[in-house]
Amino acid sequence: MTVCFRPGHPYDVLNRTPQQERSRATQLRLLEATVDCLVEFGWSGTTTTLIAGKAGVSRGAQLHHYPTKAALVLAAVEHLAQRRGEEIRAEAAGLPPGRVDRVIDLLAGAFTGPLYVAALEVWVAGRTEPELRDALVPLEARVGRDLYRLAVDLLGADDSRPPVREAVHATLDLLRGLGVANLLTDDSARRRTILATWTRHLAEVLAPTP
Amino acid sequence: MTVCFRPGHPYDVLNRTPQQERSRATQLRLLEATVDCLVEFGWSGTTTTLIAGKAGVSRGAQLHHYPTKAALVLAAVEHLAQRRGEEIRAEAAGLPPGRVDRVIDLLAGAFTGPLYVAALEVWVAGRTEPELRDALVPLEARVGRDLYRLAVDLLGADDSRPPVREAVHATLDLLRGLGVANLLTDDSARRRTILATWTRHLAEVLAPTP
Repeated sequence: MTVCFRPGHPYDVLNRTPQQERSRATQLRLLEATVDCLVEFGWSGTTTTLIAGKAGVSRGAQLHHYPTKAALVLAAVEHLAQRRGEEIRAEAAGLPPGRVDRVIDLLAGAFTGPLYVAALEVWVAGRTEPELRDALVPLEARVGRDLYRLAVDLLGADDSRPPVREAVHATLDLLRGLGVANLLTDDSARRRTILATWTRHLAEVLAPTP
Repeated sequence: MTVCFRPGHPYDVLNRTPQQERSRATQLRLLEATVDCLVEFGWSGTTTTLIAGKAGVSRGAQLHHYPTKAALVLAAVEHLAQRRGEEIRAEAAGLPPGRVDRVIDLLAGAFTGPLYVAALEVWVAGRTEPELRDALVPLEARVGRDLYRLAVDLLGADDSRPPVREAVHATLDLLRGLGVANLLTDDSARRRTILATWTRHLAEVLAPTP
């Protein structure tokens, strides 16, 4: 049986040559440096030179892997969203079932951390940069679907029942909004109160009807 | 009785000289052109020259009224948030009481229109520009308080009852998140479904306990 791997795909670890391993390590350093730069300098302050410098990668290697700022940023958002999703799944695996509050806490962390800030920088830039926007639209759909699936799985939600699907969507949009409210100041005290109330309601919606 | 007016304050209409009237008209044109520029070109593409040109105001007059891009942007966000609030109050005045769905529609319009897009551009820029951020933090608090008060009034909500306050806050944060989800694509179909479910939940929370 032949198994095909997309080069650079995170799951092809076992079949990699040492050269491929080094390439992948370089890519990962570039993607993490991209998010760091977006968080520190914003979209307009982020340059490919700055990213290569922060990653400790030569300009030549950076251009080889990701020739443009847009390519770097799109790959960084997608890779880190996927990795953050895996981390959240791993953290949630240790929870006893039915802990809606803890799942909401985990998800809320994703919307107040550096990845959300970096993504927001890119989304807002995409609004007025048509090429970036065209590439972001399918990425937004993919990341959005993965996030919805993650939330449904962790909440153990049966989203075939009518209000469950909408309640999970609303939870993610609420977290998206709370992330915006946390951009300039630490909004955690207000967020905790709002999420405590929402969690009680969500738990009721998710509970199987008797 | 002597009534004091702050110069340039929107409510001093009756006491203005023709010169003051002209000044106020110039200011309003500049503030509206600022939001138009933010929507069209984003924060980094917006310049004071561009704004003065769009407003049809000389650079000298622009510098006289608002000497910096930050001054223009801060005044524009505050003025337009206030005006939008007044427009929403006026539209809501014609509604029969208890129409939570219509009130939510009106509020949702504010989070998907040009003012929200312009504000988001400024908020995201403020994250990495310390001077802008320092000026935005008190503005965010004021605009947030006014918006909360507007929502409580229009919903006829008794926010002295424990879950009401949190539910109104959550509604505004949900709308904030739905506004982000609408940045790159028209998200109105998904938004309608989520808000229909949310409205039913909110109406239950707001209903006086028997």
